[in-house]
Amino acid sequence: MELSHIEHIGIAVKNLEQAIPYYEDILGLKCYAVEEVKDQKVKTAFFKIGMTKLELLESTDPEGAVAKFIEKRGEGVHHIAFATADGVQNALDDAKEKGLRLIDKKPRKGAEGLNIAFLHPKSTFGVLTELCENPSDK
Amino acid sequence: MELSHIEHIGIAVKNLEQAIPYYEDILGLKCYAVEEVKDQKVKTAFFKIGMTKLELLESTDPEGAVAKFIEKRGEGVHHIAFATADGVQNALDDAKEKGLRLIDKKPRKGAEGLNIAFLHPKSTFGVLTELCENPSDK
Repeated sequence: MELSHIEHIGIAVKNLEQAIPYYEDILGLKCYAVEEVKDQKVKTAFFKIGMTKLELLESTDPEGAVAKFIEKRGEGVHHIAFATADGVQNALDDAKEKGLRLIDKKPRKGAEGLNIAFLHPKSTFGVLTELCENPSDK
Repeated sequence: MELSHIEHIGIAVKNLEQAIPYYEDILGLKCYAVEEVKDQKVKTAFFKIGMTKLELLESTDPEGAVAKFIEKRGEGVHHIAFATADGVQNALDDAKEKGLRLIDKKPRKGAEGLNIAFLHPKSTFGVLTELCENPSDK
């Protein structure tokens, strides 16, 4: 697979309303979008820094993956998302061929209209890893 | 404070020798340096992607911070390091004034000769946060 940059870092927080002022008023970043991703049971808030976004994630469901993550490990970095240069499907095919455990066998829609897929942290030395592409870049 | 980009993401691993091939052979990144930072009781391996580095961290001491992190939470993302546009000391002064808990009151030397300082994750919604500057950029 070919990766071009870190598209975003997903950060699990208990409460967006409380966390956004830290990113804005202390780190000096600007929250440019808040979006609910029903499929993933989260509300997200986006910030941009350099080529990378920070994506804060608040669970909308106590049984959701982000709620479970916080219950187990506390607030903190939830995943790293890499932008693929040769597409998510190619990257998944490559990862599968090399024996990695995939969470998604095919790309699906994520926040901001990206095509995304996750690799399982058991195969990636503990880092929940997202691969993504912007369909409008094609 | 003014942040320009994500300088690096620190990732705690049990064993560099085992983790490096994943980053090289599967993600397609190139390990360009391995460095021991005695002060932090770690051996580090560096990769570059876009404007950002990935810094793998293996503890050299079972009592070190990275060893303790892995014992408690398993392998995974350990910290995010932001490059400051106006210097680490300014950023620290600003953070302190706004009531944040600092791990380092003054910048100190980190890997690759950067000036660095950490903010405490209790003040940053669970993300161990490093601020850094490259003294050769001054």
